[in-house]
This record gives sequence, C-alpha cells and structure tokens, in this order.
Amino acid sequence: METLTPASTCRHARIHITTRHPTEFIDLTDRLERLVADAGLHVGFLNVQTLHTTTAVVVNEHEPLLLTDFQALLEAAAPGDGRYQHDDTTARTVNVTDAERPNGHAHCRALLLPSSACLNVMQGRLLLGQWQRVFLVELDGPRERDISVFIFGEAGQ
Amino acid sequence: METLTPASTCRHARIHITTRHPTEFIDLTDRLERLVADAGLHVGFLNVQTLHTTTAVVVNEHEPLLLTDFQALLEAAAPGDGRYQHDDTTARTVNVTDAERPNGHAHCRALLLPSSACLNVMQGRLLLGQWQRVFLVELDGPRERDISVFIFGEAGQ
Amino acid sequence: METLTPASTCRHARIHITTRHPTEFIDLTDRLERLVADAGLHVGFLNVQTLHTTTAVVVNEHEPLLLTDFQALLEAAAPGDGRYQHDDTTARTVNVTDAERPNGHAHCRALLLPSSACLNVMQGRLLLGQWQRVFLVELDGPRERDISVFIFGEAGQ
Repeated sequence: METLTPASTCRHARIHITTRHPTEFIDLTDRLERLVADAGLHVGFLNVQTLHTTTAVVVNEHEPLLLTDFQALLEAAAPGDGRYQHDDTTARTVNVTDAERPNGHAHCRALLLPSSACLNVMQGRLLLGQWQRVFLVELDGPRERDISVFIFGEAGQ
Repeated sequence: METLTPASTCRHARIHITTRHPTEFIDLTDRLERLVADAGLHVGFLNVQTLHTTTAVVVNEHEPLLLTDFQALLEAAAPGDGRYQHDDTTARTVNVTDAERPNGHAHCRALLLPSSACLNVMQGRLLLGQWQRVFLVELDGPRERDISVFIFGEAGQ
Repeated sequence: METLTPASTCRHARIHITTRHPTEFIDLTDRLERLVADAGLHVGFLNVQTLHTTTAVVVNEHEPLLLTDFQALLEAAAPGDGRYQHDDTTARTVNVTDAERPNGHAHCRALLLPSSACLNVMQGRLLLGQWQRVFLVELDGPRERDISVFIFGEAGQ
C-alpha cells in the first residue's frame, strides 16, 4: 500500500465582493488564509480566480499610497478618457446588453494584469512573503463581483 | 481507509494551432471545455500553458472590436517599428537561427502578458464568468503553435 | 480498489538567490528541472512563486540583448526617476521601515508582471518550449530573495 497517496484535500469556495469605486484594490488575504486553515491543508496550493473580464487578481504590498501609484500606472497605460472601439455602440454587434457601459479602458487594464494567482501552501499556511498581500482589483466598479478559490493538497496530521 | 483520496484524475493534452495573422486572438475555450468533460472531472483545475516566447494566454471577453483595442494597446506598449536590440543580428551571438526574424516587439508584448492560465473546475465544468473566454494570443504570426493543457482533480460519480 | 489514485507526489522547496543588480533576470530553469527530476514526477505541474513585491517570475527567451530590451520596456512603463507617492516618506504612514528605500517604480513594474508561473510536467520533464526559460526578475536589487516551488503529480514507474 506504499504507493497510495496520503490523505488529500480538494476544495472549492466562492467569495462575493461588493465593490464601491471605479478602481479599487480589495485585500483578499485574510479570507484566503481562513479558507486554507479551514481546509486543514498541510502542503499544497490555492488558485484564486476572478470570474470577470474587468477585474484582476494581483499580489503586491498593501500600502495605501502605493495603491494610488498603481492606479496612476493603469490610467497611463489605458486612459479612462481614451477612445476604445469596444465602447462604440453604433459599431458593436457582439455581446451588446442593456447594461452596456463604456469600459474599454477597464478591459485593456485587465489585459495587462493577471486574472488569477496560484499560491503555495506550506506547514498549513498560505505562503506569502513579508509584504505580499493578494488583491482583487476592481477596474470598472462599483459592481457585484464573484471570485473562485480552489484549494488542493495533503492534509496535516 | 478514510484517509484515502477519492478517485483522482491527472491528464495532459496538447493543442496544435496554425495562426494566420501577425497578431491574433484564438479562442481556446470550447476545446478546453471538451478536455474537462472528457476527463470526467468533478472538481479540480486546469493549467493551459503556451510553449512559445512570442505568444501569451489571456482570459478576457470575445468581442471583436475589443480585440482590436487590445491590439492597439500592445502596439502602443511595444511598437512594431520600434528599435529592439534583439533584432540587431550584427550584435546577437546567442540563439541565432536561420529562421531568425525581427520579433523583439513580440517578445516585449509577451513579457507584459501571462504565458499560462490556471482555471478552476467545479461541478464538472471549467469555471468561467459570463464574459470570460480563454485565448491564445499570437504576437509573431503566422506560425505553427503548440499549447500544453494539464488537468487535475477528483472524478465525479 | 480501482478508484484509488496512482502514487502521487506533493513536494515543496525553496530557492535562495542573491541578486547583484538593480534590474536582473536570473534564469531558474536548470534548478527547477532538477527539482522535478528529484521528485520522480511523471505527469503533473510545478508552481514557482516569488515571495517579494519588487520581483516577478516570467517565462521568455534567454537572449542577453532581449533582456536589455525588457529592461528598456520596464523603464518606459514605470521610469526609475518618476514620482511615486509610495516614495514620499513624509506622507507614508503604513509599512514604513528603517530599511525603506525609494522603490515605487519597482512595485509598479512588478504589478505589470506575474508573481508566479504554473508549468506543466510531462514524461518526467518540465514542459517548456524550445526557447522558454523561467526567470526570477529582480526589480529593486541587489537583495536577498526567496522563491517557493510546489510540485505535484503522479510518480513514474
């Protein structure tokens, strides 16, 4: 029986977030750490994935002034008042809904950022460096947002 | 025996794509969904990884005008007519091949985009939001391209 | 017993790197390939995650002139002599340490790059395309850096 795997754990969870601003960094770290603790994982990994196309998942420092620098960087890369063909409702024929709003800039910013983060788990804890925090980045808020979290690994003793 | 894992599934597949344009977004979603269904996965994840350095894997909306916005964004970030030391064949000494073509801009664009996407699987389906589609992004086409897909998780009943 | 998983392997390792330059691309590929070989993995995946907020993990070609193009791209996206609120120690109230140094540009560059790479393993080898290499990107060096590597999959015969 020595070829059998140790007890393994495979879980899925959802996190719902109500965002409040056009651009916003929501710190998910505490929630993710609780999910890992609840799963009783010893070693493994966690994949946190946004379910939206105008959001992102990033790992960086939670320092409020730095978050304003990030916002300025995204504004420079894809200006909010820029021209986007996606916002031309006279030309659009695909995926046009009643709730359409001009958000080409938000999609473009999302393209430059990851839509998920795959993080390792060691000794029962989400492995993050001293300054690392995990953020959902809202790029077209305020909105209702859903995030998927998958956790896998070996359970501890 | 309660510590044994449920039936687990671990599969690998390759997808071959022939691209037709210098920049192109190829929607892989249907093919990935079929791989998940064929694997009989109930809960788990899928990692889709490009095997090239002038391509990317992104998750965003499949709206044709938006894809032209993305192309404009990449052109602004790393212009096709910009100067790249990688394209200076008089100075290059490393990785120089007969098939060399000036593609510094394509490498630079690839640097700003992910080379893989790790996506969760729930209730037997690839978990994607309403507008999320998974694309291979060709940045130096047309070319023959190969993508690797790894699927892992617990099989359903 | 046909529902039991084959022998599975689940390992974690750390890599320590001393960087020598403000911006530097450290090729991790050989070390990662050794970790996969040592784990005796047949099929599976590897997640390599940096534990710092002014570094990144990217997959691209190891061609020295291309790396200088990447450096120029990052300098253009977030100039080293730009103004970052994160660097304003008169305004900062959060995460201020004695070792503080002006590195807003490094955080901004890190935001545009991935903090981890999830790579597939097939037939006992890390699956990489002909030109793909895995780099730790130092954005605020020189420093001592730590990287986490998680490997999971089915052991070979």
